[in-house]
Amino acid sequence: MSITEKVVKIAQDARQASLAMARLSTAAKNDMLLKMASALESAVSGLIAENRKDLEVGRQKGLSAAMLDRLMLDEGRIRGIANALREVAALPDPVGEVTKMWKRPNELMVGKMRIPLGTIGIIYESRPNVTADAAALCLKAGNAVVLRGGSEAINSNMAIAGILQNVLTEMGLPQAALSLIPFTEREGVLEMLKQEESIDLIIPRGGESLIRFVVENSRIPVIKHYKGVCHIFVDQSADFDKAEQIIVNSKTQRPGVCNALETLLIHRDVAAEFIPRIAATLSTLGVELRGDDVFCRYAPTATPATEADWYAEYLELILACRVVDDIDAAIVHINRYCSLHTEAIITSDYSRAQRFIREVNSSCVMVNASTRFADGGQLGLGAEIGISTTKLHSFGPMGLEDLTTTKFIVYGDGQIRE
Amino acid sequence: MSITEKVVKIAQDARQASLAMARLSTAAKNDMLLKMASALESAVSGLIAENRKDLEVGRQKGLSAAMLDRLMLDEGRIRGIANALREVAALPDPVGEVTKMWKRPNELMVGKMRIPLGTIGIIYESRPNVTADAAALCLKAGNAVVLRGGSEAINSNMAIAGILQNVLTEMGLPQAALSLIPFTEREGVLEMLKQEESIDLIIPRGGESLIRFVVENSRIPVIKHYKGVCHIFVDQSADFDKAEQIIVNSKTQRPGVCNALETLLIHRDVAAEFIPRIAATLSTLGVELRGDDVFCRYAPTATPATEADWYAEYLELILACRVVDDIDAAIVHINRYCSLHTEAIITSDYSRAQRFIREVNSSCVMVNASTRFADGGQLGLGAEIGISTTKLHSFGPMGLEDLTTTKFIVYGDGQIRE
Repeated sequence: MSITEKVVKIAQDARQASLAMARLSTAAKNDMLLKMASALESAVSGLIAENRKDLEVGRQKGLSAAMLDRLMLDEGRIRGIANALREVAALPDPVGEVTKMWKRPNELMVGKMRIPLGTIGIIYESRPNVTADAAALCLKAGNAVVLRGGSEAINSNMAIAGILQNVLTEMGLPQAALSLIPFTEREGVLEMLKQEESIDLIIPRGGESLIRFVVENSRIPVIKHYKGVCHIFVDQSADFDKAEQIIVNSKTQRPGVCNALETLLIHRDVAAEFIPRIAATLSTLGVELRGDDVFCRYAPTATPATEADWYAEYLELILACRVVDDIDAAIVHINRYCSLHTEAIITSDYSRAQRFIREVNSSCVMVNASTRFADGGQLGLGAEIGISTTKLHSFGPMGLEDLTTTKFIVYGDGQIRE
Repeated sequence: MSITEKVVKIAQDARQASLAMARLSTAAKNDMLLKMASALESAVSGLIAENRKDLEVGRQKGLSAAMLDRLMLDEGRIRGIANALREVAALPDPVGEVTKMWKRPNELMVGKMRIPLGTIGIIYESRPNVTADAAALCLKAGNAVVLRGGSEAINSNMAIAGILQNVLTEMGLPQAALSLIPFTEREGVLEMLKQEESIDLIIPRGGESLIRFVVENSRIPVIKHYKGVCHIFVDQSADFDKAEQIIVNSKTQRPGVCNALETLLIHRDVAAEFIPRIAATLSTLGVELRGDDVFCRYAPTATPATEADWYAEYLELILACRVVDDIDAAIVHINRYCSLHTEAIITSDYSRAQRFIREVNSSCVMVNASTRFADGGQLGLGAEIGISTTKLHSFGPMGLEDLTTTKFIVYGDGQIRE
């Protein structure tokens, strides 16, 4: 079989398997995930041996130390992967939930019931734990999953997928409910992205270039976010202690991630008092400040910002800073430059807190809290399959529920339409 | 300006206007819709004059009488359009609803709030009432709307859109919140479908060829359904009177629409008793029956069905009929041939009713009710913008809520991430 034929067959088998997975009881799905966790722990030495092959190839290819570290599996990490599966098993099952139900004048009872999406394709880069993490969430929500990992982790991914598939087979479930595209040619991904009859949703996980490639080539809906240009607006009524703690946490706790702070907006009325203080604190912590004229006037360590800085997702210890006239100007700035990811206001004013919540339509809008909470786990979704900054289907961090849809259910007693 | 430049400008202006529309109060939106209704009624003679131009061109082009009738506006129809706007004004506003809210262990309050999608593109065929109906739903949900109607109705559509835009201007709202692509070249649609930075969702309304054209050429997410191959399964415990009424209603009440019955499945145990009765009734009503061997044995008026009949959306008085061994065989048949639109079981057995509801994952699944209820109005959504048989974002009939998404809102008191 050609690569094309193999990918078509994998996708069609997955579609078929998805019908069986959609009917599985919650108990059977949880049992499956717990067995998968144990199977991974029992296979530590085999997994490490396969992972060594990837590391060896990676070293020969000259991968960076950081890349090799992301690729590496040891006993502790494998136990971590197994425990993540146990956590997914412990989450409530979204499938079958009736989210609402109402009665029509003709006594028809009409409701909406959660059902699995069907088949989900995950396209990801180096870290092999995604093979198990993403698969577990898709399976728990009653879906089949088609995985396509990075070439640098192919042996590790095949080993993990093989162990999970053995559990499916042992339980009498279709092995095709979880499949991994077993080759790394780009042709395989391109073909996968054409299987709109068999795959319902594609979730790319990786850098912006991977995501753009997927979006440009997919006939299947893609849920994605390119970047996070997160803002904090310090209102004239802000508590300065809270503001400082939240800004420091949002910018420096983990600067390389998408929910880190990138632009700070400060109300003109508190510029003279607050800027010297926050600039000193941030400079001490090694943060480079790029400000507009007014900001620079109060912050001796700052250098002038250019238009490009308002768009920048630095992902490092740099912060763009601007003084604005009022909350309206802050919202105008955010609407213009934000990436629809996460924005926060620091305020003690009730009306402006409510206005910011209502009028800023990013996927996470916060009052007096760190932007670093924009994360499925932190928001209480239990686990995160990704973040969406497109508004269709899901917007913001996505958990188990976002891997389902709802159907209408109608209970009648012989009703016909007049 | 070239066509391309004009379409890009329309889309960008719509995006800008969508920011203002998202902030409008419910009272302002309702006031706007009521004024639009009155403005249409005040402009009856002008609208009829513009509509005559379209009818004249249509006659010259040789449009069928049915097409000309769909295109025609008279005083009664214009009043109907105005009243439809008043009905949309009376619907509850979905924007701002907090659909749930929960507390995290660190006391953060996390919720999900409905917000508009942004800008919605509607691509439709001949009937000019869609110009007002679809626009009203998009605007009520706080969106901007870009309309592209069929060339045969261009004068009528421009006249209606102009009247609605005047109301926007009079109220100090951005006129670009409602725009109509003012030319009919195909290039205009193609360019519209590329404006993914400005338009969030495309809804095509029309025949399968229009929808396929839109899907193949769009970079923007499209919500669509191609067809409805709806099934009824008559279980061994069915009440024959109810079964007969529901089948007759589903098949004959309006055979040309997507929620009409196309395939009837009958349990083997009741074949001998029920088939002669239902076949006689349907034949009397002029329904042509195409059955499998067993069905034909009991139905002298039936002719043999071929494989193609199980896939057929007849949209006329023809019905495919098959005898199945049990509910499992019925579900297997439905999963294989259905279009994910609407399926019903006729039964008096509790367990099988629940199994059918759970295991058939079409967008509407019914017990003891006519498939003709698969409609936004009939299900209680208030109004319908379309039907989706793709599972992403919306699945089934779509109302106002489906023209919104949700953002996360977070109320904190200084929380930072550890």
